[in-house]
Amino acid sequence: MSSSHAVVAVDVGGTEIKAALARGPVPSVLRQLRRATPKLADGTATAEAVVAEVADIVAVLSEGERPEAVGVVVPGIVDDERRVGVFSANLGWRDYPFGEALAAKIAGPLAFGHDVRAGGLAEARLGAGQGFDDLVVLPIGTGIAGALIIGGRPHSGGGYAGEIGHLVIADGPECACGQRGCLELIASSSAVARRYTERSGRTVSGAIDVATALRAGDADAKLVWGEAVDALARAITQLATLFAPQAVVLGGGLAMAGELLTGPLGARLDELITIQRRPELRRAALGDQAGCLGAALMAIEAREGR
Amino acid sequence: MSSSHAVVAVDVGGTEIKAALARGPVPSVLRQLRRATPKLADGTATAEAVVAEVADIVAVLSEGERPEAVGVVVPGIVDDERRVGVFSANLGWRDYPFGEALAAKIAGPLAFGHDVRAGGLAEARLGAGQGFDDLVVLPIGTGIAGALIIGGRPHSGGGYAGEIGHLVIADGPECACGQRGCLELIASSSAVARRYTERSGRTVSGAIDVATALRAGDADAKLVWGEAVDALARAITQLATLFAPQAVVLGGGLAMAGELLTGPLGARLDELITIQRRPELRRAALGDQAGCLGAALMAIEAREGR
Repeated sequence: MSSSHAVVAVDVGGTEIKAALARGPVPSVLRQLRRATPKLADGTATAEAVVAEVADIVAVLSEGERPEAVGVVVPGIVDDERRVGVFSANLGWRDYPFGEALAAKIAGPLAFGHDVRAGGLAEARLGAGQGFDDLVVLPIGTGIAGALIIGGRPHSGGGYAGEIGHLVIADGPECACGQRGCLELIASSSAVARRYTERSGRTVSGAIDVATALRAGDADAKLVWGEAVDALARAITQLATLFAPQAVVLGGGLAMAGELLTGPLGARLDELITIQRRPELRRAALGDQAGCLGAALMAIEAREGR
Repeated sequence: MSSSHAVVAVDVGGTEIKAALARGPVPSVLRQLRRATPKLADGTATAEAVVAEVADIVAVLSEGERPEAVGVVVPGIVDDERRVGVFSANLGWRDYPFGEALAAKIAGPLAFGHDVRAGGLAEARLGAGQGFDDLVVLPIGTGIAGALIIGGRPHSGGGYAGEIGHLVIADGPECACGQRGCLELIASSSAVARRYTERSGRTVSGAIDVATALRAGDADAKLVWGEAVDALARAITQLATLFAPQAVVLGGGLAMAGELLTGPLGARLDELITIQRRPELRRAALGDQAGCLGAALMAIEAREGR
C-alpha cells in the first residue's frame, strides 16, 4: 500500500491538539505531532484560531505526502450531522460551524466529529471493544463522558447522547449542569481526589494518589473509593436497563487503577443487576491515542465516501 | 398492487392474539382476527401451543390469498437475532426457539421479534413518531416497557434493551425484578390505581378512574398522579441524558388521560432538563394495533429480503 493512502487525523483537546499522519484501513501512525490548543477570550475567536491551527497542522503533516482525507474531532457538544460545535465549556464556543470553516482551509474529503465518540469508535474497532456490536466506552477523567456504540456505530443523538457523567445517581451536591447528584460529582477522577482531600485533609495530585492510599489501607480512601465504585455501578446498571450493552470499556485516569477499580465495580454490579444483561467490564486499550485514532478511522471512511 | 403482495402479521399478547392480513408497503389491513392466547401449566407447552395457534391463524387468514411473508411478535425478553423467546413472565417460557418452531409450520419468509419493539417500529414509521430518527415509544400499562428507535430501527440489545419500567427512580418498595424503587411501581397504570386505592381506601378499576377523580379535584388522586408524573419525568430525563431521543411517544392506559398526563409531564420535564436535549412528548397514535402493524412491517421487510 503506498503512502498516498494516508490520512491526517486531528484530535482537538481542552489543552492540547494531538495529530497524526496515518495509513489505513487499520490506521498505522506514520508521524505525529502535538501542539497547545489556542485559547482566546472569546469562544468564536478560539474556534477560529483552532481552525487555523488545524489547517497548519494538516499542512505540516502533509509535507511530502498527499493525504487523501482529513478527520478532525473536537470536545463538548458536537452535532456530527450538521458539523457544528454546539458548545464547549472549556473552549467557550457556541454553534460554531467547524465543518464549513475547516472545508474552506483544507482540501479534499473531511470528516468532523466528537472526540469522545471518535475515541469510542476507535476502542470498538481497534481496542478493548473489539468483538462487540453494542458497547459503552466510558472515559473517567475530570468529568465522565460516554460513547454509546450501537451496531458498531457511535450514537450521537444530535450531539447530546452519552452524558453519563450527568446521570442523577443520588441526592447530592449541585452540579455545574444545574442538576443535583450527578455521577461525575462522586466518581470522576477529579471528584475522587477532591472528596478524599475534603475528608482526610490531605492534598493529593489526583485519583491515582487515592488509589495508592487505598492500597495502603487508608480508611478515608476506602470510603471515598467505595462511594465512587457504588455510583459507577448504579450508572452502569441504568445503562444496562435501557441500552443493554455487551461491554463497558473503562478509560481515563480512574481506570488506570486497574483491578482496584474493575474488581469491586464488577462485584457491585453483580449485586445490583437483576433482570438486565450484565455487561462485561474492560479496560480501555488505546489510552490518549483513542480520539486521534478515531479521527483517522473517520477520515478513512470519508475518503471512501461512506 | 395485487393482493398477492399481502403479508400475515401476528401479535401474541399475554391474553389475546391479534392477527391481520395486510398489504404493503405501508400496511393496509385487509382482514383481522383475534383469539385467546393458549396458556398451559408449562411454559414450553404454552410456547408450543402458541406456535400451533399461530400456524392455524396464518392458514385461516391466508385463505384465498397467497401471503408472501409472515411476521410474528411475542412478549417478554426476545432475542430477535437468534429468534428465541428468552423469557416471558406472563406465559412462562424460557429460551424457546420460536423462529425454528414457526418455520417448521409456516412456509415462506418469516420475521420474528418482540411485541414492544414492533409496536415502536410501527409508531415510528406510521404513527406518532413519524419524522424522528431517534425516539422512545413508551407503552404505560400493567408495566412500563420501552422501544428505543435509533436511526429508525429498534435497538434490541440482545433482547434486554428498553426496560424503562425498571429504571431505579427513588428509594421505594421492592420490585418483582429484585431491585427497589423501579419506575413501574410508581407510574404504571396499575401502580397508579393501586396506590390510589391504598391511599384513599376507594377501589378503582384502573388509572382512568384516578384521572377522573383528579379532574374532580380529589386530593389523593392529585398526590398519586403527581408522584407518577414526577417519576416519569425523572426517567425521561435519564433517557435524555444517555440517549437523547428527539421524541418520547407515550402509549398504553395512562396515556389515554391525554393532556392530563402530557401537560404536567412536559412542565416537570422543563424543570428537570438542564444540559440535555428536551424530547418532544407525543401521544401514541396506533393504540393496540401497533404490535400487529409492526409485525406487518417486519414481514414486508422479510419479504424483501432485508
